[in-house]
Amino acid sequence: MKKIKIGAALLSMMFAGVNAQTLKSPDGKFEMNFQLKGGVPFYNLKYEGKTVLEDSKLGLRLFKDTSIKFASEIAKPEDAKNDLNNGFTKTDEKRDSKNETWQPVLGEKKNYINHYNEFAVTLNQTSTDRNIIIKFRLFNDGLGFRYEFPQQKNLNYFVIREEDSEFDFPSDMKAWWMVADYDSQEYQYQETKVSEIPTKWAKAADANASQTLIKNAVQSPLMLKVEGKTPLYINVAEAAVLDYPASHLEVDAVNFKLKTHLTADRQGAKGYMQTSATTPWRTVIVSPKAEVVMDSKMLFNLNEPTKYTDTSYIHPTKYMGVWWEMIIGKSQWAYGQPESNVHLDKTDFTKLTPNGNHGANNIKVKEYIDFAAENGFEALLIEGWNIGWEDWFGRSKEYVFDFQTPYPDFDIKMLNDYAHAKGIKLIMHHETSGSATNYERFADKAFQLMNKYGYDAVKTGYVGDVIPRGEHHYSQWMINHYYRIVEKANEYKVMVNSHESVRPTGESRTYPNYISAEAARGGEYDAFGGNNPDHHTILPFTRWMGGSMDYTPGIFQTKLDYYFPGDKRFVKTTLAKQLALYVTMYMPLQMAADLPENYKKHMDAFQFIKDVAADWDDTKILSAEPGEFVHTARKAKGTDNWFVGGITDEKAMDYTVDFSFLDKGKKYEATIYQDGKDADYIDNPQSYHIYKKTITSKTKLPVHLVRSGGYAISIKPVK
Amino acid sequence: MKKIKIGAALLSMMFAGVNAQTLKSPDGKFEMNFQLKGGVPFYNLKYEGKTVLEDSKLGLRLFKDTSIKFASEIAKPEDAKNDLNNGFTKTDEKRDSKNETWQPVLGEKKNYINHYNEFAVTLNQTSTDRNIIIKFRLFNDGLGFRYEFPQQKNLNYFVIREEDSEFDFPSDMKAWWMVADYDSQEYQYQETKVSEIPTKWAKAADANASQTLIKNAVQSPLMLKVEGKTPLYINVAEAAVLDYPASHLEVDAVNFKLKTHLTADRQGAKGYMQTSATTPWRTVIVSPKAEVVMDSKMLFNLNEPTKYTDTSYIHPTKYMGVWWEMIIGKSQWAYGQPESNVHLDKTDFTKLTPNGNHGANNIKVKEYIDFAAENGFEALLIEGWNIGWEDWFGRSKEYVFDFQTPYPDFDIKMLNDYAHAKGIKLIMHHETSGSATNYERFADKAFQLMNKYGYDAVKTGYVGDVIPRGEHHYSQWMINHYYRIVEKANEYKVMVNSHESVRPTGESRTYPNYISAEAARGGEYDAFGGNNPDHHTILPFTRWMGGSMDYTPGIFQTKLDYYFPGDKRFVKTTLAKQLALYVTMYMPLQMAADLPENYKKHMDAFQFIKDVAADWDDTKILSAEPGEFVHTARKAKGTDNWFVGGITDEKAMDYTVDFSFLDKGKKYEATIYQDGKDADYIDNPQSYHIYKKTITSKTKLPVHLVRSGGYAISIKPVK
Repeated sequence: MKKIKIGAALLSMMFAGVNAQTLKSPDGKFEMNFQLKGGVPFYNLKYEGKTVLEDSKLGLRLFKDTSIKFASEIAKPEDAKNDLNNGFTKTDEKRDSKNETWQPVLGEKKNYINHYNEFAVTLNQTSTDRNIIIKFRLFNDGLGFRYEFPQQKNLNYFVIREEDSEFDFPSDMKAWWMVADYDSQEYQYQETKVSEIPTKWAKAADANASQTLIKNAVQSPLMLKVEGKTPLYINVAEAAVLDYPASHLEVDAVNFKLKTHLTADRQGAKGYMQTSATTPWRTVIVSPKAEVVMDSKMLFNLNEPTKYTDTSYIHPTKYMGVWWEMIIGKSQWAYGQPESNVHLDKTDFTKLTPNGNHGANNIKVKEYIDFAAENGFEALLIEGWNIGWEDWFGRSKEYVFDFQTPYPDFDIKMLNDYAHAKGIKLIMHHETSGSATNYERFADKAFQLMNKYGYDAVKTGYVGDVIPRGEHHYSQWMINHYYRIVEKANEYKVMVNSHESVRPTGESRTYPNYISAEAARGGEYDAFGGNNPDHHTILPFTRWMGGSMDYTPGIFQTKLDYYFPGDKRFVKTTLAKQLALYVTMYMPLQMAADLPENYKKHMDAFQFIKDVAADWDDTKILSAEPGEFVHTARKAKGTDNWFVGGITDEKAMDYTVDFSFLDKGKKYEATIYQDGKDADYIDNPQSYHIYKKTITSKTKLPVHLVRSGGYAISIKPVK
Repeated sequence: MKKIKIGAALLSMMFAGVNAQTLKSPDGKFEMNFQLKGGVPFYNLKYEGKTVLEDSKLGLRLFKDTSIKFASEIAKPEDAKNDLNNGFTKTDEKRDSKNETWQPVLGEKKNYINHYNEFAVTLNQTSTDRNIIIKFRLFNDGLGFRYEFPQQKNLNYFVIREEDSEFDFPSDMKAWWMVADYDSQEYQYQETKVSEIPTKWAKAADANASQTLIKNAVQSPLMLKVEGKTPLYINVAEAAVLDYPASHLEVDAVNFKLKTHLTADRQGAKGYMQTSATTPWRTVIVSPKAEVVMDSKMLFNLNEPTKYTDTSYIHPTKYMGVWWEMIIGKSQWAYGQPESNVHLDKTDFTKLTPNGNHGANNIKVKEYIDFAAENGFEALLIEGWNIGWEDWFGRSKEYVFDFQTPYPDFDIKMLNDYAHAKGIKLIMHHETSGSATNYERFADKAFQLMNKYGYDAVKTGYVGDVIPRGEHHYSQWMINHYYRIVEKANEYKVMVNSHESVRPTGESRTYPNYISAEAARGGEYDAFGGNNPDHHTILPFTRWMGGSMDYTPGIFQTKLDYYFPGDKRFVKTTLAKQLALYVTMYMPLQMAADLPENYKKHMDAFQFIKDVAADWDDTKILSAEPGEFVHTARKAKGTDNWFVGGITDEKAMDYTVDFSFLDKGKKYEATIYQDGKDADYIDNPQSYHIYKKTITSKTKLPVHLVRSGGYAISIKPVK
């Protein structure tokens, strides 16, 4: 199975001497070499002299022209002459470097450091007289590169058949991966060797409301680990995916090579381009320390600074929601009978027979408002407030919601007035059912309604197959849609939290009101069949690399047989681990997802959720290993308060928290929330232990985490 | 080649005795028989005892469910079990009849008569317990039928793979047809036998900006003629194509059978349906007289009455346009250099190098306004007023126009003020370049701009491949788009004239602000290569059956070598025929398409265009034969003025106008505009002769029409 590439390697070395261009990272530890081999562009990457990537191919394949017809997706040999992956000569090169510090509007740290050396090579394809630029940026934590297409005589409009960017690793590695799909990111993570991916691939895919699987490909970001005496952690991802499809990674398990696979539309097209244009950045983050990879801000650094002139409306928010009770099936989004055939323009919803179990009703919403207000929350999400939920999903129904008309038992004015009087803002919910054209049609009216009633945040949703039909959740048209909505939201000064949309890749730098997305299995999957205990330890190395996730932690009543005797579903964590997630998972629009009745039974533990911050001046990844554990400390924005969270996978763990990140010489009061001695995520998840302790920067605190357990610590300076 | 169907015919007769249901037209001349043969629905049609249609199949084939995935368009044998075309038993039938007179807001007559007998049969598919209704309406001029899908337990959401409606004729016929296409209706008409269509099909298709041909299929409406001693004229079409794709007719040339072929989207899907729903009506208009077929209002009668509460803004309009000069290439839509790569959100159009030949500039537009006002026109269309025309077409560019931003040399406020002061309204132009999603995004702002500046009519355009990519000009999504825009226009009290959209099929009854569409080769094709001399005699039997066409007649300078020495292009009619078109072609938003400079040279002939009405109290088709000639008389709305127009194809013609349609005993002054004796559409098109004559209802006026010639008569009562 071991690949034999000696010939290629020798050839590469020979060429390297002749025409390779070298770029080094600011700290000198990384080295990237670019070269043309027979007119084909290649790059490689070394870390401290060790090969991370062997010579890896670059380029793009194109369609003949912009007129894509039926069966265009089937490539013919003569199409090759349109490609931008061969026949190049180097005509120019430019070098640059930058070392800047910038402040995210909301972030894990007050300052993000953007420090890189840049190399941009201009390539001319002689036969067609077309020029492209390949731009490389080498940071102290890895490499980013992209293609740039200047406006020019012979390159103005083109359609991409595939991007050829490759990542050619020298050896087998451990990989944390999920199956690639044009429409879903909601799969279980797998932990296997790269070489094992093809054999494990088919069983790693289960059903989703909308799915278009890509055989033997895996999702990006992909987390890798070169094992052995000197391990190396590697993250392969992308950044600034704008006006371009999201990418996946095809796995060549024999050669340990990853190939870029862009999301196609139904015509097989992977990007309709007009020069001047650029692709997203392909990124490779590398470190001997997993913590450094997790802490990397490279994806954000590779996005443009925001052009928003007013970001004052963007603020961290902790919220509750009329939501979990629908997720578990205790109440319904719909007002009428489920599975009813309704027409928004014909059905009189006031005359529908109510199902009697509608979640978003005036009485219940007021109870949630009361509880959220009493406990210091800022906001309350309400799903199922608007007409159309009876047949919202899986019908290929375009006019499925109008985003404006409340159900008869939801008094939008009264409830907003009631909430505002108690200091609570309601969070709007725009489920689109994937019908993006319909959402765009109503967007202005929908945001005007929000402004009218004082909503300043919206949760959007894209469950089910996309309309325009033939587009996918991650194809270029939909990517453009998501940012069109984000920009529209900014016009109306609204923060966005988007579900079933594409994973973020650092775009919140440019669009700071795009607070978060879901884009992976969130807490709801605990009700749909269960996230694995290691899930939460992998997400920060993958889904979180490009932006915060609306995971919706805080489930105290983890066993669903509490509601439905005999129900086997349960959340595969302890209660203490749920608390820890508020620190290990960065989310400035953070939910306490459980029902008030469950929090009322554990007000002592709930205190941590009340106290924990959602926006930070500093973050320290204390210790982390993908698939095993994460221990994180964060300093709350504008305060001297710190919060620490630690989680483990299905194995119990003993860990010693080292508080050396605290100010020296200062005294702090720590409140520690940890698994009870008899806690167990299956048998006894609600066993926890809370105690206080005075600590300093010299304190070392041993904690025991039971299997799928955790701990959370709230730290305040003693005055 | 003659088909042998004796067995089937016998079988049909046997069945007919057993379970056929018969429906007769109000005048008793038509008979429709419906029956189930082995669970499969069939109908036939007789006129005065003669078989028009033999037993013809009915039904629909469906996809398995609403989730259409890649390769779904390839039908598998097991898919048959989803179909709604077999296994039926009759469970109910209803009969009804109607005889009503209704007034179109704008029309060819003051009153349209809607008189029919109806038969609706409910069929239950036993194996699936699904019900459909097939509804037949038999008028005195033919048959309409459609499928209805009541909301029911087992039929709520479905996707159509194909509609099976067939038209099975007993013998060969003459046919006036054009090739079928999902994206274009702009083909030359062919006149052949039905049996010859397949052999002539391939050569009948030429290039179009967007085309997706359907092999061996022809466009609807299709005009047919059973030749012989007792000829029968037959028109096969459809009506009320709403929330459903437009249909084409596949030709079985051996069996003289036409099969319905719906426009597919890129997934092969032909209608995403939610019950309760109906299909469009399939129509068969039949008469021994061609004039009766041309005069039929069946397609309008099969549409629903309007729900508009205010139609006062809808008015007949004669307009000129800054248009023909761009069509012929004398000036340009674009302001910048042609073929420039522009980005609406980046390019500074005030800094573009002007091409120096931009049509819609302040100086020229004012000259047009002056001329239009002096000659009693109501409106002026201006194309190329807004940014984006530099690379508007064929780029698969979504953000191609913003419908709001004028070019630097077009002062929208000044020009509208200037026009209004002279009694002229400007007509807005919304070219979309097929990018319908983009147009919908800007629609509100675009119509608000129109309201702001006092526009009350818009010409829309859809040149090029459609976005959403994978949709077609005539697929369901686009049909919905067109009517969405029409309804939006009604909100803003704007009349719509749409180009490159689907042909109308009577919808102006329901949407009276949808004044007209192009949807066939209009006058512009004279500049693109030439319409044939018989083109204008076929259009009223085909394109016009369902609604008026923006043909843009009135070209006086028919030879383009006048502008460009050596240019071979010419309009293949005489000048007098151009005048006649104002009567033979019904169009309430009617253009005088030529340049002012050309009208100035022929002010005597231009007088007819100035005088002719655009909306009518009555219409008499005096004599007509498809492909040969049309002679029409119309009475101007609210007056006693009549206008007569006659045209011929490439053969000269002598015709005697019989004025018996005039009020008896009244005297009228007629002004006759006819071909000069030496006129010839090739050699001497501008030779015409104008004279006046006093006439009565008893007058018989002989006129000579040269080849591709014509005459126009304006008639006013003598007071």
